[in-house]
Amino acid sequence: MAPQLDTYYKTVDSLAEDFIERLRKAVAIPSISAEEARRQDVVKMGLFLKGELEALGAHMEARPLGKQPGKEHLELPPAVIGRYPAKKDESKRTILVYGHYDVQPADLSDGWATDPFTLTVDDKGRMYGRGSTDDKGPVLGWVNVIQSHQKAGIEFPVNLLMCFEGMEEYGSEGLDDFIEAECKPGKFFADADAVCISDNYWLGTEKPCLTYGLRGCSYYSIEISGPGQDLHSGVFGGTAQEPMTDLVRVMGSLVDTDGNIQIPGIKELVAPLTKEEESLYKDIAFTMDNLYESLGSQTSIFPDKERTLMGRWRFPSLSLHGVEGAFSQPGAKTVIPAKVIGKFSIRTVPDMQPDDVDALVFKYVKQVFADLKSKNKLNVHLQHSGKWWVASPKHWNFTAAAKAVESVFKVKPDLTREGGSIPVTLTFEQATGKNVLLLPMGSSTDAAHSINEKLDRRNYIEGIKLLGAYLHYVAEEPTEG
Amino acid sequence: MAPQLDTYYKTVDSLAEDFIERLRKAVAIPSISAEEARRQDVVKMGLFLKGELEALGAHMEARPLGKQPGKEHLELPPAVIGRYPAKKDESKRTILVYGHYDVQPADLSDGWATDPFTLTVDDKGRMYGRGSTDDKGPVLGWVNVIQSHQKAGIEFPVNLLMCFEGMEEYGSEGLDDFIEAECKPGKFFADADAVCISDNYWLGTEKPCLTYGLRGCSYYSIEISGPGQDLHSGVFGGTAQEPMTDLVRVMGSLVDTDGNIQIPGIKELVAPLTKEEESLYKDIAFTMDNLYESLGSQTSIFPDKERTLMGRWRFPSLSLHGVEGAFSQPGAKTVIPAKVIGKFSIRTVPDMQPDDVDALVFKYVKQVFADLKSKNKLNVHLQHSGKWWVASPKHWNFTAAAKAVESVFKVKPDLTREGGSIPVTLTFEQATGKNVLLLPMGSSTDAAHSINEKLDRRNYIEGIKLLGAYLHYVAEEPTEG
Repeated sequence: MAPQLDTYYKTVDSLAEDFIERLRKAVAIPSISAEEARRQDVVKMGLFLKGELEALGAHMEARPLGKQPGKEHLELPPAVIGRYPAKKDESKRTILVYGHYDVQPADLSDGWATDPFTLTVDDKGRMYGRGSTDDKGPVLGWVNVIQSHQKAGIEFPVNLLMCFEGMEEYGSEGLDDFIEAECKPGKFFADADAVCISDNYWLGTEKPCLTYGLRGCSYYSIEISGPGQDLHSGVFGGTAQEPMTDLVRVMGSLVDTDGNIQIPGIKELVAPLTKEEESLYKDIAFTMDNLYESLGSQTSIFPDKERTLMGRWRFPSLSLHGVEGAFSQPGAKTVIPAKVIGKFSIRTVPDMQPDDVDALVFKYVKQVFADLKSKNKLNVHLQHSGKWWVASPKHWNFTAAAKAVESVFKVKPDLTREGGSIPVTLTFEQATGKNVLLLPMGSSTDAAHSINEKLDRRNYIEGIKLLGAYLHYVAEEPTEG
Repeated sequence: MAPQLDTYYKTVDSLAEDFIERLRKAVAIPSISAEEARRQDVVKMGLFLKGELEALGAHMEARPLGKQPGKEHLELPPAVIGRYPAKKDESKRTILVYGHYDVQPADLSDGWATDPFTLTVDDKGRMYGRGSTDDKGPVLGWVNVIQSHQKAGIEFPVNLLMCFEGMEEYGSEGLDDFIEAECKPGKFFADADAVCISDNYWLGTEKPCLTYGLRGCSYYSIEISGPGQDLHSGVFGGTAQEPMTDLVRVMGSLVDTDGNIQIPGIKELVAPLTKEEESLYKDIAFTMDNLYESLGSQTSIFPDKERTLMGRWRFPSLSLHGVEGAFSQPGAKTVIPAKVIGKFSIRTVPDMQPDDVDALVFKYVKQVFADLKSKNKLNVHLQHSGKWWVASPKHWNFTAAAKAVESVFKVKPDLTREGGSIPVTLTFEQATGKNVLLLPMGSSTDAAHSINEKLDRRNYIEGIKLLGAYLHYVAEEPTEG
């Protein structure tokens, strides 16, 4: 039986100005986690959020996460966690939601058209302000869902567990351990039946999506060294083997112009593309013009949408990021660098095991270097790796969300993956052992992390309806779904 | 008839402490041309030099060179020029000597063992101080030569023209035009019969050398661009052609590990090695251990001295200096750089014409890039070029210097070239149309431009003898020599 949501939707509409006012108050708090001087504002934002939820009757706690690693004079902002209703209803499913209340740095002088900490709504309903879409709008979305239920007199359909952090834009310091600890039996998040994260974006501007996969990332350094110190190319050019000469040859052997990874064995690790999966891409709301616009050029690898989306989501890619230790300034310097470090990373996908990728990379790089017969020294190593994540979009968590999208937006959502990584997703999946859903509120044009970040009024208000509807469909969706 | 130089040599020895005191005074003036705040000290040093020579009866002038380009509030330090004896003796040859009175930056905190502007002599006669060997020692050498002749009562054997500049360590701003103007008929340097520059170093520590060649340098940029702005490798990796991928492939095509330039046609521009020339290298006082010591490693291209010296002096080399626009810091950044600029230079030798080299480089780079079939854009251009220089070591200017070396050091000098460039050498050759000799005073261990720069007492005092003896042999050497 489909939930009766009309009253809820109307109530959300009636409270729209209040919700925008709530977002205005949140944006006004410059909770920049990367800036030491703003730490008090981050804490203030966390307490504001806690206060708003407590006023609605939620049980809330601000949990200390200790000192900031490497800056031990700084206390990390608290994990703001909570439960609504305050007393668990054992007859209902329990959904754990995650968001973050800190924001990226922003300053009017960076080129913002309006003050980044004053929510400014233009005549097309674009609401400009730092944190509007990333991630204050979605976080307040949950607050607004609760308020709307109370105002409408509708019973809350699930037990809601909340986890809001204040360091997401600075590496989520301290959060992984906290989540793992609180997901253990008897702890705060122990009884979560599924997880919902609203911290990514639609693929375009018109059609909502549900995100069920993220690529992983394995980041490598190739260090080649020879001379004891940097040399003058006039004096030593033609007499010494130069590390930079070797490095560009090794880096040039990793990938070609069309993005084909040249490391033997990598392709074989990738899960085969099934006919069924291949057919999914053609219906995704995405065009090559979308790509060209975001690239700022037409220098795509593929001419078609399907292979472009697969290139971004379901196949690995290898990017060369740069060289440390060589001359990198404008102008002309006649140096022979003594030690150079090439940086590259591989975006990984199912079924690539990070250890297997490492082994293939190390073997190949060492072989290419050995073939150069150089007297220089090679050292190749992994800087860090994070695994890919893929959830089942057939789980009730996803089918409920899909029905909510259809109810609010009158359209089936795109099922998407993303090319980048959101590490906390994997943390929640591993700590809870439950299905994780990425349910974005904002659109692809929101400019998170850039100047003039915004959230469209439509995305915010309809997004509040979506989050609420999702909880209602979650309550009804059969387990075998 | 060989000159009778014993009295002169004994007089130099008798004045040795005075000469060291003069160097001490000069080193105490921190004439750092690169530092704006030291400009007054550079001028002070120029006027000190002028004063010392005027006190010996030379005609001296401090010629203004105008404002410093790009820093128009700064007056360039003057060219200190002079003539000794003040009145020209038409019966004698006229030798134009060049040196510079400015120095490289230096600060005790850089790691100097002693204060860089306090000449500190250790028990092995090593005289430490910024500018001791580069180039205050050699410049004062000419002053000391004049003083020694006066003290010994020996007639000065030539007309000496002097040109001392104060911006050599900062690009010799303003000097080229000045030299060209003053070499014109009727001007200050018009009647020079040959030129002698003492601003380079012995190949080792025991045996003096005369330098008759320098390599040129042509410096190039390869700019490859595609996207409108830097991209995130998670979002765009696998969908966009990456400029850095193309750049390392183009850079990797230029030269191999053993320094072989891969650009077709370059080798064919190089003057053939004759049997006579090839035989000259085996007697040069240089060992592979000398190379390994200065390299700080054993990563040489060649195992033998002869090919190493030829690799440095008489064959071209290609060095890759670095990449501008890519990630160059420590750590891991997942950026796809939108525009990257690879820097490399070719050290050129006879008979490579810079224009021909440019044409071959541009053609090859464009072809390699075209073969990649990339949608990115390539822009390859020359940043700057300076031509190689080779003088005839059979000219009387060189044979006189060789005899002076034998007289002072009881050994035949090595005839050497250098791998780097000293642009003023070519300027003097072209402006005067006369033979130019590089007659170094310091040794290979003097650490010019580094911390703990020094000049050995032996090199300074015997060097003063050498400069004086050179002038005497110049006076006697037959023109057809």
